[in-house]
Amino acid sequence: MSDEQLAPQLADFPLQTYDKVRYADTDRQGHVNNAMFSTYLETGRVEFMSDPAMGVLDDNATFVIANASLNLLGEISWPGTVEIGTRVVKIGNSSVSLNQGLYQSGKLVATADTVIVQMNESTRKSHPLTDFAKQTLFKYS
Amino acid sequence: MSDEQLAPQLADFPLQTYDKVRYADTDRQGHVNNAMFSTYLETGRVEFMSDPAMGVLDDNATFVIANASLNLLGEISWPGTVEIGTRVVKIGNSSVSLNQGLYQSGKLVATADTVIVQMNESTRKSHPLTDFAKQTLFKYS
Amino acid sequence: MSDEQLAPQLADFPLQTYDKVRYADTDRQGHVNNAMFSTYLETGRVEFMSDPAMGVLDDNATFVIANASLNLLGEISWPGTVEIGTRVVKIGNSSVSLNQGLYQSGKLVATADTVIVQMNESTRKSHPLTDFAKQTLFKYS
Amino acid sequence: MSDEQLAPQLADFPLQTYDKVRYADTDRQGHVNNAMFSTYLETGRVEFMSDPAMGVLDDNATFVIANASLNLLGEISWPGTVEIGTRVVKIGNSSVSLNQGLYQSGKLVATADTVIVQMNESTRKSHPLTDFAKQTLFKYS
Repeated sequence: MSDEQLAPQLADFPLQTYDKVRYADTDRQGHVNNAMFSTYLETGRVEFMSDPAMGVLDDNATFVIANASLNLLGEISWPGTVEIGTRVVKIGNSSVSLNQGLYQSGKLVATADTVIVQMNESTRKSHPLTDFAKQTLFKYS
Repeated sequence: MSDEQLAPQLADFPLQTYDKVRYADTDRQGHVNNAMFSTYLETGRVEFMSDPAMGVLDDNATFVIANASLNLLGEISWPGTVEIGTRVVKIGNSSVSLNQGLYQSGKLVATADTVIVQMNESTRKSHPLTDFAKQTLFKYS
Repeated sequence: MSDEQLAPQLADFPLQTYDKVRYADTDRQGHVNNAMFSTYLETGRVEFMSDPAMGVLDDNATFVIANASLNLLGEISWPGTVEIGTRVVKIGNSSVSLNQGLYQSGKLVATADTVIVQMNESTRKSHPLTDFAKQTLFKYS
Repeated sequence: MSDEQLAPQLADFPLQTYDKVRYADTDRQGHVNNAMFSTYLETGRVEFMSDPAMGVLDDNATFVIANASLNLLGEISWPGTVEIGTRVVKIGNSSVSLNQGLYQSGKLVATADTVIVQMNESTRKSHPLTDFAKQTLFKYS
């Protein structure tokens, strides 16, 4: 694995978005609370996967996280924004694996790998991705 | 208005519940973030009004806040709990007015008055309270 | 009071900022949780009052809300942004009164009036605003 | 690894605490938002590691997460509580590794492994655990 893979640049990610850091995101340590990193990662994910306008999520289905692993490399401060890079690394029958990076002021502050499963809302069982969803996801790989 | 009304005791409220203060509720000032007061007040409200098991909220209806006014008298710290006292002060055709107090370690830290309207989920118009809802709400006045 | 004052436009406010609505801001009713309105109002407030770079907040001092009143006129949805308009309506010796409006897609969804007091961090007593703070606040009235 | 280790019981953890699920913890999918799992895990961690009364965290030091991995096995619903089991699995010179389980109504809904590093607040470099901290942490292994 090259150094560049170890420290990915935001521009390397096919999907780039941001969140605005809120005063309420900080905690008594003075920096952004660690649990908020999961929220910023969610922003990078839901904008292309769960927004109904994207057509990725099937009717009567929902995306649930199966597992998530997070490496924290720095702190996030208020005021400012967090930039979120996301790429699709694996497309299964009903699951998607994502790799993400969080940046503040151009500095990588966290990387994350997440496996998401599409689940039927009624049966709560896994629900295959549609062909359209697979094609859309593939564009972001 | 008597002094007692100005500084109500938790025991004076017909409904009493609590929230556990979370580390993430604090902000960079070291204390609980001001916006969390609204969340604690919501806890006092939804447990008897929005929990489906209570039968207050009608089918296909939702409670929305029309207005809320909050007086802050002190700070809330982590670790600890917040005690929430709630009383129904007015029952309208499709609305309810609540008076609430927030306490930490026996000290009154905020009072609040909130007007809530039951709204039809489809039409987004006001939706009359059922007789059962009015009777339940009256018990907490 | 004219109709325009009753339904202020975002452009009428001397201070305008925004928050990006997060998926996590929604609740089981499908829309943004009511307590988040307080967080969006905080964003409009802290960016010019609590950001150290602005020089409004004095050393060893903190701004605390004394009281807040909120009128909700509509719901906020994900995805999207919330625009926040803020004006200073009164400058006291150690307090500031703000009037704010929240907008989504150009529609007014809430108005709020908030009284904030500058407090000494050690003594927890009110702490007079500096002349520089008063001048800065006056520019936003 | 035995089946019991794969599906640990709350009673197996030397540290057990809880969080009260809040209405605001839910999202538009109807269940608790995924990012809240990180907040519940934080509650299990900070009560014995970051509460000043415990004496584990050294003066002028802070605990930061180095990495966290989470397996989600079920959903969390409002209303109710989440029970959090925590055990110390490794004590380093300035780091601690934790294994945690989240439960609702007796059902395991998530497991997590977290590596935390004590960092000096001024230098932002790793800061060795005190002997007292190591002894306290060892009691929870």
